[in-house]
Amino acid sequence: MQTDTQQIKNLPIGVFDSGIGGLTVVREIMKQMPDERIVYFGDTARVPYGNKSKETVTKFSEQIVRFLIQQNVKAIAVACNTASAQAFPALRESCPVPILGVIEAGADSAAAATGNKKIGVIGTASTIGSEAYQKAILSRVPDAEVIGRSCPLFVPLVEEGLWEDPVTDEIARRYLEELCNRGIDTLILGCTHYPLIRGTIGRTMGEGVKLVDPAYETARELKNLLAQKNMLADGRPALGEGGQYEFYVSDMADKFKTFANMIIRYGILSARTVDIEKY
Amino acid sequence: MQTDTQQIKNLPIGVFDSGIGGLTVVREIMKQMPDERIVYFGDTARVPYGNKSKETVTKFSEQIVRFLIQQNVKAIAVACNTASAQAFPALRESCPVPILGVIEAGADSAAAATGNKKIGVIGTASTIGSEAYQKAILSRVPDAEVIGRSCPLFVPLVEEGLWEDPVTDEIARRYLEELCNRGIDTLILGCTHYPLIRGTIGRTMGEGVKLVDPAYETARELKNLLAQKNMLADGRPALGEGGQYEFYVSDMADKFKTFANMIIRYGILSARTVDIEKY
Repeated sequence: MQTDTQQIKNLPIGVFDSGIGGLTVVREIMKQMPDERIVYFGDTARVPYGNKSKETVTKFSEQIVRFLIQQNVKAIAVACNTASAQAFPALRESCPVPILGVIEAGADSAAAATGNKKIGVIGTASTIGSEAYQKAILSRVPDAEVIGRSCPLFVPLVEEGLWEDPVTDEIARRYLEELCNRGIDTLILGCTHYPLIRGTIGRTMGEGVKLVDPAYETARELKNLLAQKNMLADGRPALGEGGQYEFYVSDMADKFKTFANMIIRYGILSARTVDIEKY
Repeated sequence: MQTDTQQIKNLPIGVFDSGIGGLTVVREIMKQMPDERIVYFGDTARVPYGNKSKETVTKFSEQIVRFLIQQNVKAIAVACNTASAQAFPALRESCPVPILGVIEAGADSAAAATGNKKIGVIGTASTIGSEAYQKAILSRVPDAEVIGRSCPLFVPLVEEGLWEDPVTDEIARRYLEELCNRGIDTLILGCTHYPLIRGTIGRTMGEGVKLVDPAYETARELKNLLAQKNMLADGRPALGEGGQYEFYVSDMADKFKTFANMIIRYGILSARTVDIEKY
């Protein structure tokens, strides 16, 4: 038994996303748990999920969980807000290892942060339409007022590199105007790309509004969960012992590598391509 | 044999696209060949194709062609520029019915339209990266100068409904500036969404630049091809004889219906969902 527990401890954490945005969660896990191994999967052949249905997002997510389980992960973080919003209940039911989504973590943090109980959530059309954040917040703060707003252009603007740009400012002004007028004091950045334009969003909302980044919260809750279960890695993998970090995508491994290195500033040497429809 | 030819004539034309944009080709076929039946497939579960690799776009396109062949189509129009650019040679080799892509049709038209032999092409990153338009134009006008520019934000801007908007003007100014400076006299709208912001593109380029819409050309060439092969429908399907137009998607049939009715202004009563990964 001793050996088994030792072995489980040092298995990797699985993280997945519809594409590259989930690397913001990877970055947080690297910071908060530098000893952990990570296997990341980004579904770059079918990205984005944010304009797709619950059924499709669930099917894609289930395929990815099967792939990660085959990679022998000890736990899974669903880094994609849309997948967490639409597929998490189904995934939790069937997943044989502990699994954690960004919605619950983000809702915990927002519930703790709000003073006036007026909380905004921004995300993809699919995430906002699911009302998953709303439900998760109301189960924590029953008298909260939760205002959702989908921001479909934020992901393409981030991917086009317009992180600081008058066009992004203008689009942010339009998307966030109502949230400003409604007097929220807390705003959940409910899409993995949004922390990359945190500056623009923060300026638009003004100083009185706290921005919650579920990526940070997810890494923190994952650490607590693994600690509770005595599943934290007990030492950093030695160099040459196989990669501490492995990256898989369903398409465009080269482009992924370039973008990944912008986000996590850690030398990603390679990403491998997987035919995810077969899982 | 007489009966066989009659039967083939009245089979539907298959049209496919990565999503909804290919309806601009459907609209042209409806206008130019009002007697024809059409079966449309939009890959809304995996849209967009424009940021994906040749291998992935080819695999997806081959699945769709297999689906359309099962629907018993007499010919296929590849309405998606990215699929035409990346997958057309592979599709042409294996497709058992006549198949036509937007690239060849667009190149024909641009070659006929240009005076100074300076031709611009705008499209997705995948279409522009493939240089398919460039090669097709040079095979027609060997001393042409072809200048490509990818415009990744145009599709999300169109889908967000910003067809006439200062933000779209500003992004168009940035994307098209170099094409203006290089003195092109002809510009191919190499993505099915772009005709929907033709006004903005036309204003940005100025009156001296002819805009080529491959959707129009594709319908025209398809009509010629069917006429040559004596495969044009010989009468409009009677009402109640089964739908003249059938629409299939891989996800989000309801949203498709709404957008489709904006584009083709023909009452699309329903769209059915297909699990395209199985083909």
